[in-house]
Amino acid sequence: MGDRLSIVVVEADRERAHLIVDSLRGTGDHNIRVIAEPSRLARCIAEADPDIVLIDVADPSRDMLEELALASGPLDRPVAMFVDRSRQGLAKAAVEAGVSAYVVDGLRPERLTPVLDAAMARFQMFRQMRSELAATRRALEERKTIDRAKGILMKARGIDEGEAYALLRRTAMDQNRRMADVAEALVTAAGLLS
Amino acid sequence: MGDRLSIVVVEADRERAHLIVDSLRGTGDHNIRVIAEPSRLARCIAEADPDIVLIDVADPSRDMLEELALASGPLDRPVAMFVDRSRQGLAKAAVEAGVSAYVVDGLRPERLTPVLDAAMARFQMFRQMRSELAATRRALEERKTIDRAKGILMKARGIDEGEAYALLRRTAMDQNRRMADVAEALVTAAGLLS
Repeated sequence: MGDRLSIVVVEADRERAHLIVDSLRGTGDHNIRVIAEPSRLARCIAEADPDIVLIDVADPSRDMLEELALASGPLDRPVAMFVDRSRQGLAKAAVEAGVSAYVVDGLRPERLTPVLDAAMARFQMFRQMRSELAATRRALEERKTIDRAKGILMKARGIDEGEAYALLRRTAMDQNRRMADVAEALVTAAGLLS
Repeated sequence: MGDRLSIVVVEADRERAHLIVDSLRGTGDHNIRVIAEPSRLARCIAEADPDIVLIDVADPSRDMLEELALASGPLDRPVAMFVDRSRQGLAKAAVEAGVSAYVVDGLRPERLTPVLDAAMARFQMFRQMRSELAATRRALEERKTIDRAKGILMKARGIDEGEAYALLRRTAMDQNRRMADVAEALVTAAGLLS
């Protein structure tokens, strides 16, 4: 774990909250905020924007689990969830709700560090894959848009593909914009005008 | 957990192996194979091609952990790893080696099911993202290849972009092949001939 993390701990039980905070303090000089009232979770998390969220809840229903996971923003930061008992199917639901670590009956001081480390590593891996996927999708979409824009120019001006490409590129350079953006504007305009 | 899974258990200690197998039997009519000798892991796993691999190892070094994870084929099936003690940084190493669940000091019968459930759910999510990423990359590459092939045809035959596209498509239909494959062959041939 990093030396100084910003951590939000979601824990309704005061004694357990103390235990968790003490355990966390033993692993580094972290900035820890405890939230006892899950109903304010989403707002508190959005305000605090922590490095990681640790949720401890005794025996959640599926709805409660999914609400807690969602409110913690599992796409924006790692979320580790500890439960005492896990009803049938809840482990799967937690993972699918984006929780990076789901631990049954395991909130013990010596296990906190490996769980949070694994949660952070898993979150990083997921985030990297998600951003890679988003970038690849964007590249594909941009290529399609540029192709459509070239087609529009070829038809409108009676020019060939190479000339259409050159025209798009020159326009983008002149306007200091990206070719994909110029192509997008052209496709939109052509749609409006036709 | 599914009713009948094929599970490989990697466990050097006979007593613990019995305990694990008994616990697993309590959750369904699984097909369980125990491997005591990790050095044969990769071959045994490849042969058995199980639905999930469960590795229990007391106190692995980083090299041992990474070797075990790799030999289990974490891209092809979920791998859950249980350790008694986790040295600094090993949780992260396990996750980065592709392990779907990494559990410290937690191999107890009542926790097996949620851990394996979470491991399988996480593996599915990863696999889906990976295949989505692969498909998007392939679509992008194919589009680039088709563009290159069109450019080659336009230059070689003095035809415009639309004609080049139509020629590629007609060739693909005539040969009962995909356009991307015809384009790929054309790009390769043009490279050889130039």
